[in-house]
Amino acid sequence: MLNTLDLSQKMDKKHFSRARGERMEKLGELQRSLRAANVPVVITFEGWHGAGKGVIINSLVQAMDPRGFKVYTAYFPNDEERSRPFFWQFWKKLPAKGSISIFDRSWYGQIVNRAARGEINAEETSRAFNDINAFERLLADDNHVIIKFFTHISEKTHKKRIKANVQDLDKNMRPTTEDWQEIGLYKQLFSLYEEMFSKTDTVYAPWAAVEAEDENYAQIKVLDYIINVLAKKLTQVASAEKKSGGAAKKAEPAANSPAGSADAPFASSVLSKVDLSKTIGKDEYKEKLEEYQKEIRQLQYKLFRREIATVIVFEGWDAAGKGGAIKRVTANMDPRGYYVTPIAAPGAIDNSYNYLWRFWKEMPVKGMVAIFDRSWYGRLMVERVEGFAAEGEWRRAYREINEMEEQLINSGSIMLKFWLQIDKEEQLKRFEERRDNPLKNWKITDEDWRNREKWDKYEPAVNEMLFRTSTMYAPWTIVEANCKFYGRIKTLKTIADAMKGRLK
Amino acid sequence: MLNTLDLSQKMDKKHFSRARGERMEKLGELQRSLRAANVPVVITFEGWHGAGKGVIINSLVQAMDPRGFKVYTAYFPNDEERSRPFFWQFWKKLPAKGSISIFDRSWYGQIVNRAARGEINAEETSRAFNDINAFERLLADDNHVIIKFFTHISEKTHKKRIKANVQDLDKNMRPTTEDWQEIGLYKQLFSLYEEMFSKTDTVYAPWAAVEAEDENYAQIKVLDYIINVLAKKLTQVASAEKKSGGAAKKAEPAANSPAGSADAPFASSVLSKVDLSKTIGKDEYKEKLEEYQKEIRQLQYKLFRREIATVIVFEGWDAAGKGGAIKRVTANMDPRGYYVTPIAAPGAIDNSYNYLWRFWKEMPVKGMVAIFDRSWYGRLMVERVEGFAAEGEWRRAYREINEMEEQLINSGSIMLKFWLQIDKEEQLKRFEERRDNPLKNWKITDEDWRNREKWDKYEPAVNEMLFRTSTMYAPWTIVEANCKFYGRIKTLKTIADAMKGRLK
Repeated sequence: MLNTLDLSQKMDKKHFSRARGERMEKLGELQRSLRAANVPVVITFEGWHGAGKGVIINSLVQAMDPRGFKVYTAYFPNDEERSRPFFWQFWKKLPAKGSISIFDRSWYGQIVNRAARGEINAEETSRAFNDINAFERLLADDNHVIIKFFTHISEKTHKKRIKANVQDLDKNMRPTTEDWQEIGLYKQLFSLYEEMFSKTDTVYAPWAAVEAEDENYAQIKVLDYIINVLAKKLTQVASAEKKSGGAAKKAEPAANSPAGSADAPFASSVLSKVDLSKTIGKDEYKEKLEEYQKEIRQLQYKLFRREIATVIVFEGWDAAGKGGAIKRVTANMDPRGYYVTPIAAPGAIDNSYNYLWRFWKEMPVKGMVAIFDRSWYGRLMVERVEGFAAEGEWRRAYREINEMEEQLINSGSIMLKFWLQIDKEEQLKRFEERRDNPLKNWKITDEDWRNREKWDKYEPAVNEMLFRTSTMYAPWTIVEANCKFYGRIKTLKTIADAMKGRLK
Repeated sequence: MLNTLDLSQKMDKKHFSRARGERMEKLGELQRSLRAANVPVVITFEGWHGAGKGVIINSLVQAMDPRGFKVYTAYFPNDEERSRPFFWQFWKKLPAKGSISIFDRSWYGQIVNRAARGEINAEETSRAFNDINAFERLLADDNHVIIKFFTHISEKTHKKRIKANVQDLDKNMRPTTEDWQEIGLYKQLFSLYEEMFSKTDTVYAPWAAVEAEDENYAQIKVLDYIINVLAKKLTQVASAEKKSGGAAKKAEPAANSPAGSADAPFASSVLSKVDLSKTIGKDEYKEKLEEYQKEIRQLQYKLFRREIATVIVFEGWDAAGKGGAIKRVTANMDPRGYYVTPIAAPGAIDNSYNYLWRFWKEMPVKGMVAIFDRSWYGRLMVERVEGFAAEGEWRRAYREINEMEEQLINSGSIMLKFWLQIDKEEQLKRFEERRDNPLKNWKITDEDWRNREKWDKYEPAVNEMLFRTSTMYAPWTIVEANCKFYGRIKTLKTIADAMKGRLK
């Protein structure tokens, strides 16, 4: 998930001051209302040393009535805590109804830290993540709001900040030995964090990543996110009270309509960093195209003999070039060994089953290559945006899809997912070309023009989708496709590399 | 869980015929209603070879409109199924809306079978159970009813039935090689099944065990259970439709109010097999009491030095002798190394936290013995029966409690749970004695008499509790306590044995 983030996000000082002021006021109000509504709130901060958690927490608590929250530093358990069952220390620190507990590092930090240092093995780590899910599910079922932040900075910034702290030891208590050690552990921690996200990004307690290179941006994003989640929870509480005629305390806090997720912070992060100026010339294109197509055919046979299935998913904006890319991928492949499944709106029979049913049917036998032209990700785009799926349904889908893909990979398949990215201008150009060219006219419909108008509604959905379904085992490849040549070659190369990697 | 079942359950032929007739009619009706309501139903049968699954399924389908169900034998995947991702074969066989799929062996049978034969290792087995939970959660969230039966017979009956089939090979296709092999694998399968229960007994898809020594009883229990679950689902659908003014299709199918559980079949099974006639004499009692008390003190010191914590839970009917038993356990222990926590109704502070909070606080540091006189199991008894906890809340508690206990054990603790069983007559005798004896009078309150009147409401709750929370890692010890001497010695011996076992 972390790799999808755009770390160049910034906010200038002037905007920041005003934005912060507004949010502080709002947050204070929300705290009072939650107190009245008896809602307990858990906020955890994880992230790199030097990523500014301290500053953020400081800014956060200034907005709040100090009688209503407590901040806990939970990175180093004390002797007594070490000698009790793991979750004992956190149970002790849970908020009472109407209160807020803020954790500067939490159950996550302790587990990841121990795993990085080899104090627990892979199986124990995985079990610990399961235990954490059980713990958070229990809290969520019991009406708690759970907000989990991860403050992310690049490896370079990380190193720089820890070193900079040496210059100014009096400024705070950093860097500790732990901080220094983290420099050497960065890569190992990175992959542990990715495992952590994929195992513990749940409907009832989703992760929110914070691009923390710029302190101002990070603070506002955190405040925004919290405000969003808390406001939503209050709305739920109010509507539950209304329905039950005041007896809201007994209302089942649906795991399906989570409090812990907000749209706004995803508005700009993943796609905004895609460099659409990437391009290659026609000659290079032709040369590489031939090279990769040849290679892929050979790889296809090898995979067939080794009985390894491949699943390739193509998603992207209308006119981003999915069809063209698929054509180039398959041009030289043995047709007995692949099939392309185009996905349109589900039919009557599809609708009498779960939304994943029609995709499961098409999952390849060993040795085959299955290509999906659009896919199950429709659940998180068109079905979400157009309201064909209820909020609980599409929110569940992040996990359901991740689980399905993990099952495919565990069964031995290669799994590739391409997002073909173009910008609005490029899309317009291509639409107009299709409209005006009689040979391409069939490719464009009124529907396409209507969808284009909803670009701004689709974008946050796509951003959140790319973020939450980019897992270690099935990451998205974002293809810069303003230049068709560039996009196709990147696609082919990614496929060839993945196949080669698997055959090793 | 299986060990808790009373396999002596029987039903005579006369009662059976009438009972079956009534249920068949009811089931037919329910099928039609579910069809109209578009509810898909999944029924799986797991259990020992020779436990009569075939007969039960046969009896089941006779009640139903054949256009509305399909029966799948899913024990041996065919070549194509083996060559696709594991769940592909089951996705293909899922019911459409309004239909019923019946599985004679399912995802469970295949996984357990492969694990028993060493084709997958412990980690893969555990991952498979996680995948199964994901699969069932997805279906449950998508409005499916999931009913999972396990038909249980004793090892002796199992062997006998498989051998008997040899005498009559024309009667059916049994026994196959698989059946024969199962005789040798019984113990291994038994422990795999227990793992399966503890990992996959979820709120959204709970297990129902069927005492299958007597075919008639088993058939009726299965029919009863299905009727109960389906009727409940229909009520939910109807009330969701009412609330949403007909737009029930979009209603979130709450994971919290599961369709898959019914009370009736638990009415008699666990406690009914407890032999309350067990007794020992005073001399033997005194001798053994001294012996075990001495041993436990030594063990206490050893556990202290080895830094192993012990958690002991006492539950049982009023006047079953919990206090007396605890007194005998602790009589000779070093008081610096244990503490007894008596549990009464939660106070105002307790109520401002999750129900497990007050117990977590009391979990022992390493080396200590924590004894609970009543415990978190109140959630599943008094809070359930008196309605202090909503149905969704106490149903979730089975899993929450199992998870908590697993965490305690994984942290290195010994965990013991005693249910002190007496019968109603014995309780009356003890109540009267307390009432009439001025020295014991303080022990009895009006509350106790009121609770006694609710015995029949508590019994099914206790049965279900003992069944669902008897896990491999934390099984219940049921103590026959009509004879106080016998009960105390059994308790002390169980504790001493568990401590010795852990120190090995």
